[in-house]
Amino acid sequence: MFECHERFRQDSEFLIDLKLCQVRLMKDGELDWFMLVPRVKGVTEIIELSKEQQVTLMKEIDLCSRLLKEEHPESKINIGSLGNVVSDLHVHIIARYEGDRAWPGTIWGTKANAPFKSERTQFWKEYFDQ
Amino acid sequence: MFECHERFRQDSEFLIDLKLCQVRLMKDGELDWFMLVPRVKGVTEIIELSKEQQVTLMKEIDLCSRLLKEEHPESKINIGSLGNVVSDLHVHIIARYEGDRAWPGTIWGTKANAPFKSERTQFWKEYFDQ
Repeated sequence: MFECHERFRQDSEFLIDLKLCQVRLMKDGELDWFMLVPRVKGVTEIIELSKEQQVTLMKEIDLCSRLLKEEHPESKINIGSLGNVVSDLHVHIIARYEGDRAWPGTIWGTKANAPFKSERTQFWKEYFDQ
Repeated sequence: MFECHERFRQDSEFLIDLKLCQVRLMKDGELDWFMLVPRVKGVTEIIELSKEQQVTLMKEIDLCSRLLKEEHPESKINIGSLGNVVSDLHVHIIARYEGDRAWPGTIWGTKANAPFKSERTQFWKEYFDQ
C-alpha cells in the first residue's frame, strides 16, 4: 500500500485515492488547500511521469480545482509543484482569495491564524463521494 | 495576433509560440525562468481550458521542464500557476537550485541580484529551435 512522506502525513489528512494521486487536505484553518500526491515511488518531477500519467495528473488537477471553485466561486485557484523541502512529487491546489493572509503573495511557508478542524476533512470526503 | 498582458511584456521576453502557449523568458539575471501563456483570450484558470487544451498545456509544461532540466541537471523544477497579481492564465516554470536567493522558499516576489542579459533570450530561442 502506498504511504506518502511522513511530512505530508503530519501536515495534511487523507481525502481520497484517485486513479493516479492520493488527495489530501492540508491542515490549514483558513484556506481549503489540497495536496495531490501521485502514488508513484521515487518520482520528484512531473517530467519523470509517463505521458499517460501526466494526462491523468492534469485530469485530477482539473477535478480538484473544479471542486474548490464550486465551493469558493470567488476564489483564485493557485496551483504549484515545488518540492524544494520535500522532493517527493506533489501538487498543491489552493483556493486563495483577495485579503487572505498572504494575498497576493504565495501561501507556502505562511501559517494560518486559525486552528484546523478535522470536520473539514469529513466535509471534503463527502464532497468527493458525491 | 495574440498579445499578452502588458505586465508580462515588461517582465519577460518572447521565446517561441508553441501549439497552445507563448513561451517567454523572465528577465531574471540569476535564474532560468520560463512563463507559458496560453494564447486563449479571457482565460484565468486551467479549468477554463478545454480538455484538449489542458493536455496540450501539460505537454508544453513537460517540454519546457525537460529543456530546463537538460540545461540545469542539478535543478529542482518549480511549476506554478497563480495569477493573484495578473489574472491572465500563465504558468511559471523555473529551474531552482539549492542556495538560490529564495531557497527553499518560493521565488515569486523576490528580486534578482544580477541584471538580466538579453543574450539569454537568444540562447533559449536557439535551444528551442534545435
